[in-house]
Amino acid sequence: MCRWLAYSGTPILLDELLYKPRYSLIDQSMHSRLGVETTNGDGVGVGWYEPSDQPVPALFRGTGPAWGDVNLRELARVTRSGLFLAHIRASTGTPVQQTNCHPFRYGRWLWCHNGAIHDFRELRRDLMLAIDPDLFPSVAGSTDSEVMFYLALTFGLRDDPLRAVERMAGFVEQVARAHGVASPLQMTVGATDGDRVWAFRYSSEGKSRTLSFSTALTALRALHPDMELLRGLSEETRLVVSEPLGELAGAWNEVPESSYGVVQKGDDELGAFTPR
Amino acid sequence: MCRWLAYSGTPILLDELLYKPRYSLIDQSMHSRLGVETTNGDGVGVGWYEPSDQPVPALFRGTGPAWGDVNLRELARVTRSGLFLAHIRASTGTPVQQTNCHPFRYGRWLWCHNGAIHDFRELRRDLMLAIDPDLFPSVAGSTDSEVMFYLALTFGLRDDPLRAVERMAGFVEQVARAHGVASPLQMTVGATDGDRVWAFRYSSEGKSRTLSFSTALTALRALHPDMELLRGLSEETRLVVSEPLGELAGAWNEVPESSYGVVQKGDDELGAFTPR
Amino acid sequence: MCRWLAYSGTPILLDELLYKPRYSLIDQSMHSRLGVETTNGDGVGVGWYEPSDQPVPALFRGTGPAWGDVNLRELARVTRSGLFLAHIRASTGTPVQQTNCHPFRYGRWLWCHNGAIHDFRELRRDLMLAIDPDLFPSVAGSTDSEVMFYLALTFGLRDDPLRAVERMAGFVEQVARAHGVASPLQMTVGATDGDRVWAFRYSSEGKSRTLSFSTALTALRALHPDMELLRGLSEETRLVVSEPLGELAGAWNEVPESSYGVVQKGDDELGAFTPR
Amino acid sequence: MCRWLAYSGTPILLDELLYKPRYSLIDQSMHSRLGVETTNGDGVGVGWYEPSDQPVPALFRGTGPAWGDVNLRELARVTRSGLFLAHIRASTGTPVQQTNCHPFRYGRWLWCHNGAIHDFRELRRDLMLAIDPDLFPSVAGSTDSEVMFYLALTFGLRDDPLRAVERMAGFVEQVARAHGVASPLQMTVGATDGDRVWAFRYSSEGKSRTLSFSTALTALRALHPDMELLRGLSEETRLVVSEPLGELAGAWNEVPESSYGVVQKGDDELGAFTPR
Repeated sequence: MCRWLAYSGTPILLDELLYKPRYSLIDQSMHSRLGVETTNGDGVGVGWYEPSDQPVPALFRGTGPAWGDVNLRELARVTRSGLFLAHIRASTGTPVQQTNCHPFRYGRWLWCHNGAIHDFRELRRDLMLAIDPDLFPSVAGSTDSEVMFYLALTFGLRDDPLRAVERMAGFVEQVARAHGVASPLQMTVGATDGDRVWAFRYSSEGKSRTLSFSTALTALRALHPDMELLRGLSEETRLVVSEPLGELAGAWNEVPESSYGVVQKGDDELGAFTPR
Repeated sequence: MCRWLAYSGTPILLDELLYKPRYSLIDQSMHSRLGVETTNGDGVGVGWYEPSDQPVPALFRGTGPAWGDVNLRELARVTRSGLFLAHIRASTGTPVQQTNCHPFRYGRWLWCHNGAIHDFRELRRDLMLAIDPDLFPSVAGSTDSEVMFYLALTFGLRDDPLRAVERMAGFVEQVARAHGVASPLQMTVGATDGDRVWAFRYSSEGKSRTLSFSTALTALRALHPDMELLRGLSEETRLVVSEPLGELAGAWNEVPESSYGVVQKGDDELGAFTPR
Repeated sequence: MCRWLAYSGTPILLDELLYKPRYSLIDQSMHSRLGVETTNGDGVGVGWYEPSDQPVPALFRGTGPAWGDVNLRELARVTRSGLFLAHIRASTGTPVQQTNCHPFRYGRWLWCHNGAIHDFRELRRDLMLAIDPDLFPSVAGSTDSEVMFYLALTFGLRDDPLRAVERMAGFVEQVARAHGVASPLQMTVGATDGDRVWAFRYSSEGKSRTLSFSTALTALRALHPDMELLRGLSEETRLVVSEPLGELAGAWNEVPESSYGVVQKGDDELGAFTPR
Repeated sequence: MCRWLAYSGTPILLDELLYKPRYSLIDQSMHSRLGVETTNGDGVGVGWYEPSDQPVPALFRGTGPAWGDVNLRELARVTRSGLFLAHIRASTGTPVQQTNCHPFRYGRWLWCHNGAIHDFRELRRDLMLAIDPDLFPSVAGSTDSEVMFYLALTFGLRDDPLRAVERMAGFVEQVARAHGVASPLQMTVGATDGDRVWAFRYSSEGKSRTLSFSTALTALRALHPDMELLRGLSEETRLVVSEPLGELAGAWNEVPESSYGVVQKGDDELGAFTPR
């Protein structure tokens, strides 16, 4: 299992979210409070969209524990972005290597995952065969998470993200059934095209890993009128996190079981997620 | 491209071959004389069969340049074996990671490769689909070399190594033809089951990477009566190398183009290699 | 802080102690129960004395978390030794790098440490100046633990280990006093010359990290007559550990506060440790 | 030995110099043409001054070969700076670890070095003792290059860089003489405070490693009126390099033996370097 966060809003230094908050993502690499594993020391990654004239988002991925990654600490101190995805990894069996670190990238898209496909070793071949042959050469690592990403791309992630991820989940469950694997899918997923952020919470058994999103800024400022950081952020700033950061009362809403959310300009969306 | 060696004979410290000779394998990681690339700094690996009661050979694989691998240097100093395979890697495009380092292992078998499948990215899916579904979950990395190994296993490596590797080569060429890829295969391969060592030299274009085997010990001792190292080795001791070590006159014979050899108890074999 | 173990006795595979027991040392790298930190993911090392004709013990040191070190797992499976020292690291501020991993080695000696010199950054220069100029070039890393080792060597570790370590501890406390640092030293130390094993437990404040040694084999066999592993081990086999392995009732004795112990042929020793 | 470059001028993507030119610095990591070693695969680093409101420059340092560092490639693609120092390392004996990678940083200062102090192991203690005790705790690695930096800081680098480096060189030679070491110092050094760049070329034996600086932009544009890249750069843009990049005729001037140069607003400086 793993931990991740997605940020969308007023450009800030990565530092502000990766290192500074109490229970920051990097803290969680050593001491997660809500994760299935308390240690997430098998790699770290962050993807961001600055400068915005670049055709693909930038990616930094390290294979050591996040808490000791000196390069990430430097990078976070000088990199400002209005949209980024960060992830810390606890391997569920696949090797610790850069190509297995999240986020995964394809074109403008980034993807990160907390959870697992159970008995992935047995299902892997059938799942990989279903990946669009044009996309197949881009699969670089060996995780279930990356295969899920390429299946979602195959099923139309770039055109209709909700439907594509629902089809991916449905397909994984169908293949698992054929192999006699019960309750195969456990996932929270964060995905972005550099414009909107999608978050998904689902598990075959109906007991998904935790996922939260941040309260509207206006409401949060009313609760905490003295917090300077909050004043500088736009109304539309949002965070989606595996595990709440900091201790701000009223700051976090849990994403319901079997749901999806979209962070975007204008009203955000929240709705039911149903594997197809 | 890469460099490798296989040793079979009187048990010696790995050190004796990996570090001590002039032009040793580890030297070649920085200064290969005969390789297509002069630098082979993208990983190193060694597999050996001691203690012999272990069900599978031992494996050490490092992702940094061989010349600076402190753990390998230590290991080589204290590990004695009568059969081992060592390899230094120069990536032809796939990531530098432990799962891409040779030798690859399956059960009692070890496999290492110098060369490439051209346009492997395009051919990879079709090649992987042909791997026996029972073997598929064991594919851990992303190299052409490992896919060749699992294809050979699929085609019967454990029963009839020559025929299995010939079928693998033929299959790679057939898939390449279907994709319009000319001269797809370039390889020297070393493989062993812990008892015999097979070596293969082949390329679709008929210009294969160099491969040599060592002269019979009796002949070599006659040429160099004063060399102490040679006295301690049994008649049956043999080396197969991508590139000759040391400068011993008369020590090395080139494996002919499109050939295979077997190092084994009793007479060794040398014959023609024909993709099927 | 860190965790370590020392084994002396009938040669066994490293595996038997590093991986197989419940609460094994490698388990402790992710989930220590008694350590100040629960995670010890900043490196791992093991030193051993086979083959015995080597002038110096062999050393393997990895910078990643022990739980994911594939090479160590392989090594432990095939390496048999009657004397070894193993260590997992949780950095107290110095960089994660191979030269900072324990055990440290000088000639026939190995040294590992759990604890810290408080305010080491401030004291480091004065401590390093006291290292014998002939030994100084061998200091390779930047930890307090290694400086303690070289100070002990300077003060005669090779001739009178107890006295040398007592002088080292006394000297650290004296330098700390001069800098106004209170309660400077916290340590359990394991040291060996390949023949005997010394263990030390001491802290300036009198609240030292845990340290235990194993019960005499005869007594242990009487308690657990059905345990096969125990039958194969000689009377003189002993373990010294930061944290008990397994759950064997009656297997472990705590080393008292401010004490030292010696595991050796004939009677072991246990006595008071007094910084000089 | 190593290779390095310093850039000062119109902000550009690091990419433009680290990867794009023929014979780029990253190319030189595998195939240096002018270096004493042709391979510089023991680490890579880059330091830069963006965003400019940060108290210290940003630093990225990797321990693997530069040619395979995926994170550096990403970083170079999205990082724009008007002043940066980059370095590729070929170890002369000290360990391959992040704390031994250049550039070294202290406050606003960055420092990188190509060359060596001969018999550094023997001289290291005396050299380290001369480092200002207040600076001593910041020495993190074990190279001669870093010790040279801290000696220069001790001798006043921040106030009078030329004089401080001359005193450092003089001091190294004096200590070497006392130890009977002939021709101890070999160096090209690049140093910057984020405003000006100093470059030094010196060796005790008068045969220093190569060092070049770029021709004035006006002259270069006159020679190559059709080169687009050149048009976007200010008059004051300068490069200092261990080894010329690209093949632009008339682009490079060698720094004379025993000289220093300063790249700064207004006229640059070039003068004699004399150890004191």
